[in-house]
Amino acid sequence: MSFDSVCVVGAGSIGSLCAGHLGQVAQTSILVRRPQHAADLNAHGLRVSGKSDLTSEVVAATDPAALPAPDLIIIATKAMQVEEAAKSISGRFPQAVVMTIQNGLGTEEVVAGYGSWPIVSSVTFMSGTKESDTHVHYELDTATWMGPFHPSGTTFETVQEIGELFAASGLNVEVLPDLRPAQWSKLIFNASVNPVSAVTDLAHVGLFARRERDSDLGHLMFDLIEEGKRVAAAAGVELFEDPWEMNSRAVRQGSTHDDEYAHVPSMLADVRAGRRTEIDFILGSLVREAHRLDVPVPLSEAMYRLVKARDRSYDE
Amino acid sequence: MSFDSVCVVGAGSIGSLCAGHLGQVAQTSILVRRPQHAADLNAHGLRVSGKSDLTSEVVAATDPAALPAPDLIIIATKAMQVEEAAKSISGRFPQAVVMTIQNGLGTEEVVAGYGSWPIVSSVTFMSGTKESDTHVHYELDTATWMGPFHPSGTTFETVQEIGELFAASGLNVEVLPDLRPAQWSKLIFNASVNPVSAVTDLAHVGLFARRERDSDLGHLMFDLIEEGKRVAAAAGVELFEDPWEMNSRAVRQGSTHDDEYAHVPSMLADVRAGRRTEIDFILGSLVREAHRLDVPVPLSEAMYRLVKARDRSYDE
Repeated sequence: MSFDSVCVVGAGSIGSLCAGHLGQVAQTSILVRRPQHAADLNAHGLRVSGKSDLTSEVVAATDPAALPAPDLIIIATKAMQVEEAAKSISGRFPQAVVMTIQNGLGTEEVVAGYGSWPIVSSVTFMSGTKESDTHVHYELDTATWMGPFHPSGTTFETVQEIGELFAASGLNVEVLPDLRPAQWSKLIFNASVNPVSAVTDLAHVGLFARRERDSDLGHLMFDLIEEGKRVAAAAGVELFEDPWEMNSRAVRQGSTHDDEYAHVPSMLADVRAGRRTEIDFILGSLVREAHRLDVPVPLSEAMYRLVKARDRSYDE
Repeated sequence: MSFDSVCVVGAGSIGSLCAGHLGQVAQTSILVRRPQHAADLNAHGLRVSGKSDLTSEVVAATDPAALPAPDLIIIATKAMQVEEAAKSISGRFPQAVVMTIQNGLGTEEVVAGYGSWPIVSSVTFMSGTKESDTHVHYELDTATWMGPFHPSGTTFETVQEIGELFAASGLNVEVLPDLRPAQWSKLIFNASVNPVSAVTDLAHVGLFARRERDSDLGHLMFDLIEEGKRVAAAAGVELFEDPWEMNSRAVRQGSTHDDEYAHVPSMLADVRAGRRTEIDFILGSLVREAHRLDVPVPLSEAMYRLVKARDRSYDE
């Protein structure tokens, strides 16, 4: 099949980066929540600055019925909005392939509950900042990795075609026959960095990798990552990259000059903004896997409960 | 001996409650840090409202040389200022008895390093709020418990006399031959409630005792308290009261009406005010005891590292 028409659901920074680029090579529509957001996108298109410099015409709407039928639907919402997104396209676009691009585990299963589309799993390492509803700044042009979600019968060829579309649009992409090693590496990394950051109110600074004194935070990070690795091993997943190395490298890169420039992980940004975090889809999904596989993860459970309390999501 | 002259070092809420009451039955002086604070106390005396209603004349100064020689010195600073306080009275007042009244363990040993005074251990359950430098509001009139610090040779009779002085001044007091069971009960209670509160930004609300869902914070509280109880057992201390019961009861009392009225633990108040917490003297002292006694306390270590990171005290 060919992918001439793409629909992106959700226009946060990742959704906007996808739609802005793909708009250069395919008819691109965006499903958003606010009518004004849709009107602005329809009037001005979507601009990408930074690592790319382009503006794409897009068709935006708050109702999927108003959008052209897509060949590819990219669900680029936060993890906790995936169910609402899947519901909104349920019963529509039976010819489409659906791609998820959230952090954590389990959003593919959520989508599969609302339709029989072939599903593509992806994780992205790119990052950007929304400057406005019609302008996203492309900061890190690192790759998006994608692979078939096998339970939905997606073929590797389908993923390869989508990968070619991404590459043609100027995005960096890697297509893998099995995404799980990369997905789990990123999961374990995120499931340790994000909660620790959210409860300490610290950006991802050097302290996260420091293990000199007994009180240093790096010990906790190391032990949390060890728990995650034991869960991955029990799930039969060989990690693509050691998450402790990912943590140490990210900290070295972020603090080349000064901890002031360190990355603010998304969960900390959420807590600071008074928004609900993605804890249930990131650390929560790891803890659920651990329980299913009978792997003890006491530190991960502790962090899960602390973040649930910190982001006030304990009554959901 | 008789206790006619008392000196209170530090005039936070606990120091002010002690000095205000004791000023009714003994000559009372206060050692403070700010000259203006001393001037105001000398001019206006110290007022206590709430559970008591009284004003006491006091002699205040920033220099111990300016104070009348005391029979009893109560060090009522925060735990991390005890060393500075002990230093300031080192070489002076050899006839005095020194009482510590901090949370946590180990402040008696700090004082003993600076003089050969008989030392009285105490823990207090009363609480108040400083309304101004010369006015403290007495909120909870629960007891102060005191007992001899045996390594310094303090007799039980000395502690009984001090207890009588407290009682005569209107404070509630309990004199015990061995304070450790009470001190450890309160330590384990504080070492769990305070750090969890500091990193979740939650007052001591009902969630701290809730164990209905897997994500509930009560599970973590329970497990932290279990670790503390194992350390106490290894130290040969039989607890005066089960800290889990203390936690459950405090939460029930605090939230009779609404979680809005729940108590804000001191570590959370410190974090919110940008002040350094007492983590090293509370949870830190428990972790050090655990290491000395070879008791594994992984959750306590995790909380210790998180609070050190959250209050930015990792470089001290």
